[in-house]
Amino acid sequence: MRSLSLLAGVCLSVNALAAVPANEPVQPIAPAEITSPAKVELGKQLFFDPRLSRSGFISCNSCHNLSMGGSDNLPTSIGHNWQEGPINSPTVLNSSLNLAQFWDGRAADLKEQAAGPIANPKEMAFTHILAIDVLRSIPQYRDAFKTVYGSEEITLDDVTDAIAEFEKTLVTPNSRFDKWLKGDKDAITQTEREGYELFKSIGCVACHNGPALGGNSFQKMGLVEPYQTDNPAEGVAGLTGKDADRFKFKVPTLRNVELTYPYFHDGAYWKLEESVDVMARLQLGRKLSDEEIGKITAFLKTLTGEQPSFALPILPPSSNDTPRPQPFE
Amino acid sequence: MRSLSLLAGVCLSVNALAAVPANEPVQPIAPAEITSPAKVELGKQLFFDPRLSRSGFISCNSCHNLSMGGSDNLPTSIGHNWQEGPINSPTVLNSSLNLAQFWDGRAADLKEQAAGPIANPKEMAFTHILAIDVLRSIPQYRDAFKTVYGSEEITLDDVTDAIAEFEKTLVTPNSRFDKWLKGDKDAITQTEREGYELFKSIGCVACHNGPALGGNSFQKMGLVEPYQTDNPAEGVAGLTGKDADRFKFKVPTLRNVELTYPYFHDGAYWKLEESVDVMARLQLGRKLSDEEIGKITAFLKTLTGEQPSFALPILPPSSNDTPRPQPFE
Repeated sequence: MRSLSLLAGVCLSVNALAAVPANEPVQPIAPAEITSPAKVELGKQLFFDPRLSRSGFISCNSCHNLSMGGSDNLPTSIGHNWQEGPINSPTVLNSSLNLAQFWDGRAADLKEQAAGPIANPKEMAFTHILAIDVLRSIPQYRDAFKTVYGSEEITLDDVTDAIAEFEKTLVTPNSRFDKWLKGDKDAITQTEREGYELFKSIGCVACHNGPALGGNSFQKMGLVEPYQTDNPAEGVAGLTGKDADRFKFKVPTLRNVELTYPYFHDGAYWKLEESVDVMARLQLGRKLSDEEIGKITAFLKTLTGEQPSFALPILPPSSNDTPRPQPFE
Repeated sequence: MRSLSLLAGVCLSVNALAAVPANEPVQPIAPAEITSPAKVELGKQLFFDPRLSRSGFISCNSCHNLSMGGSDNLPTSIGHNWQEGPINSPTVLNSSLNLAQFWDGRAADLKEQAAGPIANPKEMAFTHILAIDVLRSIPQYRDAFKTVYGSEEITLDDVTDAIAEFEKTLVTPNSRFDKWLKGDKDAITQTEREGYELFKSIGCVACHNGPALGGNSFQKMGLVEPYQTDNPAEGVAGLTGKDADRFKFKVPTLRNVELTYPYFHDGAYWKLEESVDVMARLQLGRKLSDEEIGKITAFLKTLTGEQPSFALPILPPSSNDTPRPQPFE
């Protein structure tokens, strides 16, 4: 009996594998490999520490909220003094897979990105020098940096390195779609499978491919038909000044897209169905039926992976020497 | 040899117990007893959910940050549209031990308290009706409320009950001082012990007693000498209209006081040493020496207990029917 069951299991497995076409343009998300737990723990504390902001109120997690798909679920973010941010806050989940960071790719990697919001007057509105002063005034941080980087000195380079190292752990493996990719044919429904086939056949996959289904190229928003928005962001052209780069943005990942509403660089669309419709019309010149939109949306929801699970970090207290936050000055 | 070691251990234990005077005015914090894990888990999600605010940005945890001693470490809190709050945000840690909630005790218990900030125009600036509408629009919340309360309907009563149930778990047992109280004579140093003796002999303990070292009475701030502040809060008099209640506030807990700076209802003092000095002068008519202040401060730092440890909750996503946040309207 026992070997019969085993055999049945093997047959099922072979069937399941046979059902998955080879050479898919999407690959599963690999789980995080943590080689330096102390560095990741330090980075986690820094990610959650609002003392890296002028107000003492805004942390990385405020706009890349790990309870909410690594985003803030707002059209554009709330910054220091309740300033309205210029652009939708991209998810930090799987962001290590991006070819560059920010919508316009102006940071080469997560480490470079992490320094940006701290000193951006519309975001955390601090200065790097003051942020470092705060950390240096806290004995437990000095100890942690010494353990991880061999020195109590604490530099911006170390701070952003630790934050980036934590962020690299924020991957979301084992989505239902990844299980299907790996051979479990029952992991997604027939409708979801049809959605995936449509996603490929109508051309979504031309930009949304690879393990993150995006994040690996810059593309023009409004390729066939212009995108209507009040948002003044010009994308890569803001960096290069080239007309050819106007409205060229990094293609966002579709991993966990069910959690990262509202959509597009201006956060103007809340519903996944509407976003699929807009994308098909503007990028592919194609008007999808409600049924097609429903199928693609169903597929997109299979991309929700295991969210990073960890204990809420407990932050070390300020000392008598810690510069005080200035929320209302 | 083995029984000798055992015997030595017993002797040590007897010694340790003998070193602790009987009938202390402070009792150890009892660990949380969780009788309804599903309710606590639901309450935790609600505590971390910024969709209970008009902006979609402010949650209970924004001002009662569990990474930071259950407080925001700001003089007064930042509310909707960056409004400056009227009073220092009290720690949620051990708040179940308070005789009433808020500085003026206007809420009888945690459940009643939890409803306040949601609808306060200076805090989360939402309405209870809209907050409930948001929760009802989210299938996973409907399921969770059905599991816990037997109905998908979701009422404010259920919402605040769940939040309060989570908050009751936010106790901080096993501080060094509690270990000492329980008989481990080496858990605190000689200086810390002397600080405790001073704390009792000069009269701090008259108000800061019980397991929370406070939270169990209302007292006038500035009993011997008036407290100088620009903060207009009048304490209990704001509720009763009685002159005798002016500047009468709930005595704050001293548990985890090392983490809950800045101090007093106006958050005007950042240093524990200064706060001890002010309290001794204004409440007890006593000018302490730097040495005495140092000893009492050392004692106060032994009151930092084990911080609540739990996984960051993952919030269920909004649905297409969820009312959208209005951060800038």
